[in-house]
Amino acid sequence: MIKNVSIIGDGAMGSVCAMLLVENGINVKLWGHDADYVRLLADKRENVKFLPGYKLPDEIAFEPDDDQAMKGADLILSAVPCQYMRSVWTRLKPHTPPLIPVVSVTKGIEKGTLLRPSQILSEIIGPDRHYAALSGPTIADEIVRKLPATSTAASTDLELARDIQQAFNSARFRVYTNSDLDGVELAGALKNVIAIAAGVIDGIGAGDNAKAALLARGLAEIKRLGLALGANENTFAGLSGLGDLVTTCVSPKGRNRSFGERIGKGQSAEQALSATDSVVEGAATCVSVLELAGKYDVEMPITQAVYDVIYGGKTVQEGIQDLMTRELKSEGE
Amino acid sequence: MIKNVSIIGDGAMGSVCAMLLVENGINVKLWGHDADYVRLLADKRENVKFLPGYKLPDEIAFEPDDDQAMKGADLILSAVPCQYMRSVWTRLKPHTPPLIPVVSVTKGIEKGTLLRPSQILSEIIGPDRHYAALSGPTIADEIVRKLPATSTAASTDLELARDIQQAFNSARFRVYTNSDLDGVELAGALKNVIAIAAGVIDGIGAGDNAKAALLARGLAEIKRLGLALGANENTFAGLSGLGDLVTTCVSPKGRNRSFGERIGKGQSAEQALSATDSVVEGAATCVSVLELAGKYDVEMPITQAVYDVIYGGKTVQEGIQDLMTRELKSEGE
Repeated sequence: MIKNVSIIGDGAMGSVCAMLLVENGINVKLWGHDADYVRLLADKRENVKFLPGYKLPDEIAFEPDDDQAMKGADLILSAVPCQYMRSVWTRLKPHTPPLIPVVSVTKGIEKGTLLRPSQILSEIIGPDRHYAALSGPTIADEIVRKLPATSTAASTDLELARDIQQAFNSARFRVYTNSDLDGVELAGALKNVIAIAAGVIDGIGAGDNAKAALLARGLAEIKRLGLALGANENTFAGLSGLGDLVTTCVSPKGRNRSFGERIGKGQSAEQALSATDSVVEGAATCVSVLELAGKYDVEMPITQAVYDVIYGGKTVQEGIQDLMTRELKSEGE
Repeated sequence: MIKNVSIIGDGAMGSVCAMLLVENGINVKLWGHDADYVRLLADKRENVKFLPGYKLPDEIAFEPDDDQAMKGADLILSAVPCQYMRSVWTRLKPHTPPLIPVVSVTKGIEKGTLLRPSQILSEIIGPDRHYAALSGPTIADEIVRKLPATSTAASTDLELARDIQQAFNSARFRVYTNSDLDGVELAGALKNVIAIAAGVIDGIGAGDNAKAALLARGLAEIKRLGLALGANENTFAGLSGLGDLVTTCVSPKGRNRSFGERIGKGQSAEQALSATDSVVEGAATCVSVLELAGKYDVEMPITQAVYDVIYGGKTVQEGIQDLMTRELKSEGE
């Protein structure tokens, strides 16, 4: 049974995980890379930068010290953006206790290496511990408002998955287990590319039929790549696959969808990118995904169309035309 | 190659199919059960009752006569609401030419018999012809506005499926084939129940995480029943499964979603039903679906919750509580 969790990362997801855990009576220490900001969190009890307007429970302990943050943990939770994981975990490596399992809530693929979050962790802090992912349709500010949500705890070590399920599950946050860590992490990364396309559809006003087709065919190409990489087919129909894809493509707040919407409304990719301070993960991910798809010889027409519009100078109309006039297929293809 | 299509049913979908076919140079006769209304359609070139505000192409021939309507067809398209199919097709049986294949665009399960559209047709006009279904995320008034859409042509006779694909496919309406007629028809019927639950979630403002979870777990239980009935797993991830489910749960106009929304906002099921002249298919379908689920021993907790709220006197809050506090599961269960 999990009693003490060290959360690495003080963004929205780190804060939300801390809230869910302390509500279940679990001790939580929350660490961030900027000690001053961690002290401010402890002082204000509000995550003013990443989750403004909500009070954080008194039970959360904020810990700016690298060594103290890890002490006594029986589970470590990594909530660091994908492209920052390498630097954060390289810094924390000397302080990370051996064997303690790590669960990641990060969604992405590392640029260049094409590694998924648990693979990055394994490379840095070693393969001699169990890894897991907690992933699903979990928009942070809905969870903070105590709206009902669900998630998947995935690990090849099913006992760890069940421990995480027990630690997080409540009447407002229902957790399922899954043994397919590869599939869960891939689905979480790949949906951000499809969300950009969903935003484009919103921006040009192409309608709900087109949006629904995008989700179905988008999930089909995510699954194709997943299967080529050894993931389990069922994962993609689950909460971390279809579920997360739906929220990301539908919720008006999502950064990837909003980025696509600006392009659909006529901005260039450069304009649309510069309109936000946030990282648009899908714009980076689609490059890595096409590299992976090429390596494994998998057709990903929607991801290709998103790439062509962002980096290849194609217009949105050309991208859609490409998708609608491909060779006729059966649904299995 | 298909050159002459007789469309039985002058509702929105019948009209939309006629438009798509004549745009591809195919001859279309459109028949409706009320000869006076068919003459009015021919006269006005507008489907004032079911698709108001849009001009129907001059190339569509309207045919009120039962016998003339069927003459010369090399494909018959059935676009009759499920619960009216038996009476319409019993009337048309003497006029229906033998062997000519029939494609249905109807979504539903017949009350009492629990038959799907192609099964009803086979029972009435005989099993000695091929049947198909054309199904997908196809909100009629988006197609009329020439927004892009996709669909699945399904038949155990793959040649027929390909002929229908060829007849309908265009740069704005992309058609895929599928050999799993059972699965395509089941998915089309079952999504209406989940759409009621999606409306409830909208009505109470439960958020996008909850909506996404509903879609993922809703599709999981649709698939469970489908597999028990011999359908192909992949169908449920496709356009007629996931795709249609997304549109139906997301589009503000859907009758089933709107019905659920009124319940979520506090109306009783009776009040919510009497607020509309339209048939709320999902309210009837959920009774048939639970009968089927009982027969095949399949757990369908969301369908059960919808039933409990509509017919069992449960509150929405009790229904959600039931779903969130079930025994903990793995995603496969």
